[in-house]
Amino acid sequence: MNVSKFDLEKAFSRTEPYRVVTPLVPVPFLNERWNAEVWVKHEAFQPIGAFKIRGASNFITQLSREELDKGVVTHSSGNHAQAVAFMAKQLGSCAYIIMPEDSNPLKIKNARKWGAEVQLCTPGIESRLRTAEKVMHEKGAIMVPPFDHPWIVAGQATAAMETFMLRSDVDYLVIPLGGGGLLAGSALAAKYFSPETKVIGAEPDQAKDGYIGFKKGERERTVQANTVADGLRTTVGEVPFNIIKEEVADIWLAQEEKILPWMFKFWQETHLIIEPSCAVPIAAMDTNRDQLKGKRIVVVITGANVDLGQLTSAGDVDATLG
Amino acid sequence: MNVSKFDLEKAFSRTEPYRVVTPLVPVPFLNERWNAEVWVKHEAFQPIGAFKIRGASNFITQLSREELDKGVVTHSSGNHAQAVAFMAKQLGSCAYIIMPEDSNPLKIKNARKWGAEVQLCTPGIESRLRTAEKVMHEKGAIMVPPFDHPWIVAGQATAAMETFMLRSDVDYLVIPLGGGGLLAGSALAAKYFSPETKVIGAEPDQAKDGYIGFKKGERERTVQANTVADGLRTTVGEVPFNIIKEEVADIWLAQEEKILPWMFKFWQETHLIIEPSCAVPIAAMDTNRDQLKGKRIVVVITGANVDLGQLTSAGDVDATLG
Repeated sequence: MNVSKFDLEKAFSRTEPYRVVTPLVPVPFLNERWNAEVWVKHEAFQPIGAFKIRGASNFITQLSREELDKGVVTHSSGNHAQAVAFMAKQLGSCAYIIMPEDSNPLKIKNARKWGAEVQLCTPGIESRLRTAEKVMHEKGAIMVPPFDHPWIVAGQATAAMETFMLRSDVDYLVIPLGGGGLLAGSALAAKYFSPETKVIGAEPDQAKDGYIGFKKGERERTVQANTVADGLRTTVGEVPFNIIKEEVADIWLAQEEKILPWMFKFWQETHLIIEPSCAVPIAAMDTNRDQLKGKRIVVVITGANVDLGQLTSAGDVDATLG
Repeated sequence: MNVSKFDLEKAFSRTEPYRVVTPLVPVPFLNERWNAEVWVKHEAFQPIGAFKIRGASNFITQLSREELDKGVVTHSSGNHAQAVAFMAKQLGSCAYIIMPEDSNPLKIKNARKWGAEVQLCTPGIESRLRTAEKVMHEKGAIMVPPFDHPWIVAGQATAAMETFMLRSDVDYLVIPLGGGGLLAGSALAAKYFSPETKVIGAEPDQAKDGYIGFKKGERERTVQANTVADGLRTTVGEVPFNIIKEEVADIWLAQEEKILPWMFKFWQETHLIIEPSCAVPIAAMDTNRDQLKGKRIVVVITGANVDLGQLTSAGDVDATLG
């Protein structure tokens, strides 16, 4: 399915009442380390603490009143679920969120925060899908996919569109790669609105299905993810993959053992909390720092939903990172 | 020594090129918990990550060129040292920072960040003072006190002055109490520019010299501090105490075991890093929440310099806080 320039423009106006135009925050310690100019687009300032509101709002605002009255469903348990719940509340719909019954109680509490109805199921993707289908069937509710849909891709594109409104001179736009919605949307935004900008994906070395697929030009679905970057464990979706393989300049990998040290280093230097997934682009860029010299770079910080209860000591971060 | 309205006004213009007018960030989760309107004045956005730049800049800008050429000294090792180093760099002076030789390497590195010369000494306050006096004698350098001086108090007052420029309807201004410079300055700012505002100090229960002194009207110097809030272990200085005892509405205490859970809770909810000292007002306010209902409250978040290497698990924060 094609996602046109006009689709992005429509998404930009449709989502405008629901997304925050997040700031580009300069990052002096990275400027110094890489001899470059680095800004982060800080999506933690969205009301749900993550960028997912962009895609969810572009999807849900396209439903009819009748559809909204029946409700929306998702079986994600992370930032996407919060985005769906938040949007359902805004539009007077009901969100059903399917979560495995062994989920962290904090995640369940967060999912309920915006008034969503949480339905617990036995763990495992089979059971989640079955429970979701049951809700869709019984309530007539509509599934809001987390990434594999043109409306979601167009919604996520608005982060890059805002970036290009603020800066016309971005050399690299670096984006974490999980399901691929944000990377695909960003690549399209650059193609249509800032063709000089190279869009780079960043993926954990221990969840590199996107990297392998990109290199061979064909979607890779057999990788078993094993990374601390919980937001990036998903396999790239079909809709995003077909855009990524055409429009993305490169995909860089982050070494697993560098991800948490970079997260803590970023906390320490900027005093801004970012989730582990957001340390993946920083770690990957540091590995490729030779290519960054003198460049103007924007990194999208996708969210800040960290379970602090699970946090252990950061250890000697500077010794680890060198 | 008296600190007049005009002293505050002069401090406000003198420090203007060096301080950031930090934002008042709304805190919805506290609004809901306390049924109040709460903003934090987020001093972590200062270039050194803490409010101490205010007092240090008001002090150092009053030195002559000749004095600046000889240098400035401090034997603090925390945020004040960074403020002195930062200001020395701005004004082409040299900062000498006396630190015990067993200091955390990160603190030493931070002290050097702005070009200061770190002089290590044997641990203990005696040795620090002796080394500082040696530097003052040998170099003719001037000691910049961290809190016990009218120029420092007037400089710290600028945080409250900025607050009152942005909001004329503040019921409570709540300030962490360590050496007392910020609390004394804030109380004077309210007296001169927002007399309806009650200024409240917040102190750890395990370092309550300020609380005891305030209650008996006489400075208390025998308390042994034993708190995780490392920025608040100092004894209140004489200059600040004489202002605090006249101008502050009350001092509230934070239970020691609630300080770190509140810090982590604040991180989790706002995605902003604050240091343990800043959780003290929040914990103390929560204990006194009956008095907060319906009030408009500003809390000064003094800084965000946390040693993440020392961090352990936050545990089940919500269970602890109720």
